[in-house]
Amino acid sequence: MKNYKLAIVGATGVVGQMVLKVLEEKKLPISEYVLFASSKSAGKKVSFMNKEYEVQELKEDSFDSHIDFAIFSAGGDTAKKYAPIAAEKGTIVIDNSNAFRMDKDVPLVVPEVNPEEIKKHHNIISNPNCSTIQAVACLKPLDDKYNIKRIVYSTYQAVSGAGSKGIHDLENGIINYLTKENYKLEKFNYPIFNNCIPHIDVFLENGYTKEEQKMINETRKILKKPDLKITATTVRVPVFNSHSESINIEFEKSFDLNELKQTLKDSPSLKIIDDISNNKYPLATSATGHDDVLIGRIRRDYSVISGVNLWVVADNIRKGAASNAVQILEHLI
Amino acid sequence: MKNYKLAIVGATGVVGQMVLKVLEEKKLPISEYVLFASSKSAGKKVSFMNKEYEVQELKEDSFDSHIDFAIFSAGGDTAKKYAPIAAEKGTIVIDNSNAFRMDKDVPLVVPEVNPEEIKKHHNIISNPNCSTIQAVACLKPLDDKYNIKRIVYSTYQAVSGAGSKGIHDLENGIINYLTKENYKLEKFNYPIFNNCIPHIDVFLENGYTKEEQKMINETRKILKKPDLKITATTVRVPVFNSHSESINIEFEKSFDLNELKQTLKDSPSLKIIDDISNNKYPLATSATGHDDVLIGRIRRDYSVISGVNLWVVADNIRKGAASNAVQILEHLI
Repeated sequence: MKNYKLAIVGATGVVGQMVLKVLEEKKLPISEYVLFASSKSAGKKVSFMNKEYEVQELKEDSFDSHIDFAIFSAGGDTAKKYAPIAAEKGTIVIDNSNAFRMDKDVPLVVPEVNPEEIKKHHNIISNPNCSTIQAVACLKPLDDKYNIKRIVYSTYQAVSGAGSKGIHDLENGIINYLTKENYKLEKFNYPIFNNCIPHIDVFLENGYTKEEQKMINETRKILKKPDLKITATTVRVPVFNSHSESINIEFEKSFDLNELKQTLKDSPSLKIIDDISNNKYPLATSATGHDDVLIGRIRRDYSVISGVNLWVVADNIRKGAASNAVQILEHLI
Repeated sequence: MKNYKLAIVGATGVVGQMVLKVLEEKKLPISEYVLFASSKSAGKKVSFMNKEYEVQELKEDSFDSHIDFAIFSAGGDTAKKYAPIAAEKGTIVIDNSNAFRMDKDVPLVVPEVNPEEIKKHHNIISNPNCSTIQAVACLKPLDDKYNIKRIVYSTYQAVSGAGSKGIHDLENGIINYLTKENYKLEKFNYPIFNNCIPHIDVFLENGYTKEEQKMINETRKILKKPDLKITATTVRVPVFNSHSESINIEFEKSFDLNELKQTLKDSPSLKIIDDISNNKYPLATSATGHDDVLIGRIRRDYSVISGVNLWVVADNIRKGAASNAVQILEHLI
């Protein structure tokens, strides 16, 4: 059994820290780790696997000594610059950013959904957007069985998806509510405390946000239906962690509701919480800390011939980012 | 000019208090007010119109001395018992509860949308559900022009819609976050702080909540399209006041996007906030304290032949309840 060398790029960020936590939980045959970050965080000490690591500054020669795998959680600009350098040197990169997701030579992978894509890589594999991962985990088994015709997404996304600055904005808003202590917004254009903000990532020419367009494009790529009809409204809500999604789906084929529920139950990584007589349904606080995608409020949409509404919740930092990346790494190993 | 006598039933509740505030802002020809509440709140002193009022206990003989109008904001059970008594005695009742909304003899009115229904009353007029009022205010001008075919609602509803107990649950959750002080939930099944709860009002046999079914039924009644295809997911969010809604609409007719925006701009009580190049869109904190329905994120839905997505925000206690009731009263006067 080979022992691998793994780099974690962006090791001090919200997702990078979770990558380290998930790696600690798994027993992977990795004998050597290197932690990278920007010059700002370089030199920081990070406790990991019962050892103290010093975070290295990411540089153009960082991949000169052979590194088998790298998990990048450092944003699009860093990925665009350094992932190709790493790939060129023979490192297989799993990238959490938006940089390469829609490249036709880059697999976009949720391991439960399209593991067969992993092997098609040319040293770069993309992790989908957090809001897409939890959606396609539910959509794939339903598409296989009932052939999805159209999707309407409305999301309720946690501030952790906006990194530590997003978390600070909510925290500071809460403190301000009780103490009236002034604070400066670090991430959002408006206070996220006491607001739902219908604006994630930048606005595009067509009036959609990039986050909405990502959900549309990435769902199509992962389900291998380039013309699938999808629309999306993505919204930031004053919740610290775990994204919730209202997903309206129209099918080509008819379905039996109990059979549809059983199909979801039989799918890996999905957990059905749908017992309305006992007021049980997925919540952000139930999803946080776990890798399962929670599904509830499963009910027929009577406004179309064959349709269903779902309420889907998952930990956006774990399943929506870190755990999905580590699962891809497990497949590679 | 006649001077009328007006009763406010449920005068100490969240909506009742707002009814008093809205009445103070308007100059209506009302010479006498009576404030009613349950026995629990009877005897309370309420300052209103520069006068101190003692809240009376609502009883079966409360309407024996002639009262011209009554605004009820006291829940379905109280309305079911006392509104027919008042109506019988000749009082015209405007009821904020769900009790009579779907009765075919009871007009269900949003004054900007279907004022012609008011005169058809038999002494009881219903105020629609808060989440319905702001939705139909936008939908009506679009339906008139483009003929709505189908609607998919996903809501982001504030805790004030659940009354003072709902507000306490969020407040106590915030305090608990900072102080770790224990608290007991008063209204919701789960902490609303840090969660989006996909459960408003009780669950029905068909898997929908009553709130979802209300949005579907009331929209159909107000738009006078009993078979309109509608589905809904209604969600409580950790926001104190003002409901936000993601509304996906499919039309029978084609539209020009600028013309559609102009149609909304020309409609009474709607305010367009849709300047994405300057990051302007409706927010709960912008809507609070005003009667306008705010609309933004207006963009074509490319997943259907003719469709649009809207983000609609309004003060659920003002336009969604108190102001709408007072506007109906103005029409009656």
